[in-house]
Amino acid sequence: MSVTSQVPKGSLNGLFNAKSMAIVGASPNRDKPGNQVIRYAKAMDFDGQIYPVNPTQTAIEGLKCYKNIMDIPGRLDLVVLIVGADECVKIAQEIARRRDEKGDIAGIVVVSGGFSEGGSAKGLAKEKAMLEPLQARGIRVIGPNCLGIADQYSGVNTTFDVPPYLKGGVSVVSQSSAIAASFLTWAKDMELIGLSKFFTVGNMADVGVDEALEFLGEDENTKVIALYMEGIRQGRRFVEVAQKVSQTKPVVAFKSGRTAFGSGAARSHTGAVAGNDKIYDGAFRQAGIIRATTIAEFYYTVCAMGKQPLPRGNRICVLTVIGGPGTICIDALLATGVVEMARLSDNTKAHLRKILAPTAVVGEPQGYVDMTASVTKEMHEEIVKTILADEGVDGLIYLNTPPPFLGDEKLVESFLKAYNFFPEEERKPLLCVFTFGSNVAELRRLFERGGIPTMEFPDVAASVMANMVQYSEWRKFTKKAFLSRFNIFMKGGSNNGL
Amino acid sequence: MSVTSQVPKGSLNGLFNAKSMAIVGASPNRDKPGNQVIRYAKAMDFDGQIYPVNPTQTAIEGLKCYKNIMDIPGRLDLVVLIVGADECVKIAQEIARRRDEKGDIAGIVVVSGGFSEGGSAKGLAKEKAMLEPLQARGIRVIGPNCLGIADQYSGVNTTFDVPPYLKGGVSVVSQSSAIAASFLTWAKDMELIGLSKFFTVGNMADVGVDEALEFLGEDENTKVIALYMEGIRQGRRFVEVAQKVSQTKPVVAFKSGRTAFGSGAARSHTGAVAGNDKIYDGAFRQAGIIRATTIAEFYYTVCAMGKQPLPRGNRICVLTVIGGPGTICIDALLATGVVEMARLSDNTKAHLRKILAPTAVVGEPQGYVDMTASVTKEMHEEIVKTILADEGVDGLIYLNTPPPFLGDEKLVESFLKAYNFFPEEERKPLLCVFTFGSNVAELRRLFERGGIPTMEFPDVAASVMANMVQYSEWRKFTKKAFLSRFNIFMKGGSNNGL
Repeated sequence: MSVTSQVPKGSLNGLFNAKSMAIVGASPNRDKPGNQVIRYAKAMDFDGQIYPVNPTQTAIEGLKCYKNIMDIPGRLDLVVLIVGADECVKIAQEIARRRDEKGDIAGIVVVSGGFSEGGSAKGLAKEKAMLEPLQARGIRVIGPNCLGIADQYSGVNTTFDVPPYLKGGVSVVSQSSAIAASFLTWAKDMELIGLSKFFTVGNMADVGVDEALEFLGEDENTKVIALYMEGIRQGRRFVEVAQKVSQTKPVVAFKSGRTAFGSGAARSHTGAVAGNDKIYDGAFRQAGIIRATTIAEFYYTVCAMGKQPLPRGNRICVLTVIGGPGTICIDALLATGVVEMARLSDNTKAHLRKILAPTAVVGEPQGYVDMTASVTKEMHEEIVKTILADEGVDGLIYLNTPPPFLGDEKLVESFLKAYNFFPEEERKPLLCVFTFGSNVAELRRLFERGGIPTMEFPDVAASVMANMVQYSEWRKFTKKAFLSRFNIFMKGGSNNGL
Repeated sequence: MSVTSQVPKGSLNGLFNAKSMAIVGASPNRDKPGNQVIRYAKAMDFDGQIYPVNPTQTAIEGLKCYKNIMDIPGRLDLVVLIVGADECVKIAQEIARRRDEKGDIAGIVVVSGGFSEGGSAKGLAKEKAMLEPLQARGIRVIGPNCLGIADQYSGVNTTFDVPPYLKGGVSVVSQSSAIAASFLTWAKDMELIGLSKFFTVGNMADVGVDEALEFLGEDENTKVIALYMEGIRQGRRFVEVAQKVSQTKPVVAFKSGRTAFGSGAARSHTGAVAGNDKIYDGAFRQAGIIRATTIAEFYYTVCAMGKQPLPRGNRICVLTVIGGPGTICIDALLATGVVEMARLSDNTKAHLRKILAPTAVVGEPQGYVDMTASVTKEMHEEIVKTILADEGVDGLIYLNTPPPFLGDEKLVESFLKAYNFFPEEERKPLLCVFTFGSNVAELRRLFERGGIPTMEFPDVAASVMANMVQYSEWRKFTKKAFLSRFNIFMKGGSNNGL
């Protein structure tokens, strides 16, 4: 569907670092997206200009309103369209005219739907008609049918669903706006992550997942990439890009459209062709992409990757105050086929037995310590430190359901002392499970602020740890032998229907 | 391990409907379980007597304190032990003496650990020594190593972790106290369920999962049973009981100890022998028990079963405002192998198209409706009603991530009007997914109060609906042909290692 452009494509930097943006379809009605976009843009740490465009208004949200794109004074970098599809086609012409006259506008974000996603010839024709004058001038297009972009560092925000966020190292690329925005709203509330860039691609008329990934791979503020996708067009390029990015940054993906019906829904959603799911599985594995199978696993893997070091091996210890969840965690760890239970050294075991009550279970089964409810918050420091110091342990999962009489702050303090006792380069991943809900929300926030990822469910924590192990092994493997093998694959392989 | 008792076992009714209870190990220290138990017992709607027992105190939490069991005046029904294991053995003798002298005490709850769960000969011997004088008199023992029981209807509460709850139809049987208590704390906060009985069995020295299940099967306040188990001893009896209970009430189970290591952890936790997981799978299937594979699926299936009617068939419709989660939901539904996508009638499709925007997707793929973000809250009523009225639809999953400009109350109102439009006997299960977290917590509470179950994740909702379908099919099947087949199995079958 992509029209071959006559001129070089512009850089996405022009959009993410825009110093001025116009919102076409700006609305004075606070119940409309066209209003919310302006309020969110204003709420950011953005030191550029925001220009609402609406021929019937003189001002919206305290900002001067313009009748059209041409009237906007000075340099205009970015245009956001929240109007009907037909209107978008017309405005694309206007944008092209302005570019010809003034030489500005690096790119546009098309929030509106009604294009190729419906699968109709009419919608596809509109998408092409909108795209053509822009691509011919190297003006980049994000969408249509998307939420747009947000950058916590530059302060650009074209969305009506991603409020200002804590700055951090997680970036999100998504074909679904809802999945991405919900993740962020939730993660913000729980203080789980800090955000760098939010990047929804919608129908990918111009900018696709591969280019988004490449862009974030080069973004110095991005440490981890969360990727939600339904389908891609240029499979080989996607694998090439992802393989490169994965060398230095984890890419955690959730791919939907696994079944034929799901794939049909994906097509109606963003026009994506989901293709054979097994092929994606293989491509992800080759590219070093971590594929999550549930949404909870997807989110929490991103959060943990953003905060914690990678495990150096696959030997994991489970430390619990609660036997049931501990058992569930072990089951889930071993079911991944990736993790081994750590073999605690005799010294470690002896030391733990000295601290813990006689009813505690130490190393039976291997790698499992059930401290039982008699443990005090003060004991935690020494126990956690002892386990993390054991050379036979590559990572630790801790589980508890804090009873009402256990003080939150003391527990956090005890943990952070143990965790921060080790110099940064010697740290091992530590995940904490606190069951469940708002009962433990404040405790979880305290841990999260201290840099320790928390989860609600023991089985989810197990998947997250297994994902970290798998990515760590891929990184080690790829450093040694993978590159040559990959090159052979890329030369010999076909597009594989991707 | 169970000692053959000389006299008939007492009924569990004597414990759950106790009119007086003693707490041995009562503590004036608010940081101790022995204090929290008293406060929780007092906070219940319990019109009986609570007797703290502690030789060094005169009063605890405003209640007169007794030096020992014998001193307690009047009739004593239930004794809770929160003291060391050796002390428990001594007090069991005292309880036996009181029974001989006064003829009271129906049963005891032993919260304390340090018995057979550690696997030591010493612990096992203590458990036997404690049990013997009690079983010889028909006094029932719950535990040891458990949280005890709570009954929202009688007001009995021996736990230090289950506060007073909303009365309802869900009962919980659990070998793990933490799993059960966390579930309830969380469900209470989200107003997901109302509770009848809470029943943790710990080491099952006397009362086991089978008897708990049988008791709840006969409890008129229990509509759904949530069962967390690690292992059982009397496999055949368990299947017999469960098969009978499942005829009228859904039993939703999570069984841990799936792997050899997990099974080892379970043994150290409650002394349970997890056994071969495949055998449990088969037994559950035969008994009509719904087996959940993740904790989230476990909890939410219980919640949904408690609120909604069973689907009459397996044809499910997915109605979404958000394409990504909609796609994930379809994938997850079909991956269960249990559900078919509903075939909407031509009338239904035509009517939906009339209401919805042209960009909406109706019935492509089959059984899928993406209303897109242009839908208004008012439209919901007619759309939901139309789909639920379609004879080709057996159940509906609705997905949304409410943007800030969509009014919560209006949406709920619209839904409840549609749902309650149908007489009770014609209602179909309706599950709602709202993504995610505290952002939608209040909206979820409004739906839950209206009787509509809500979830955070689309894949979890799919599993829940599939579980409802599977149980409904089991019920239909068992009514027709299962009983005869089951009888053959029970006669011919061995204990199967359970």
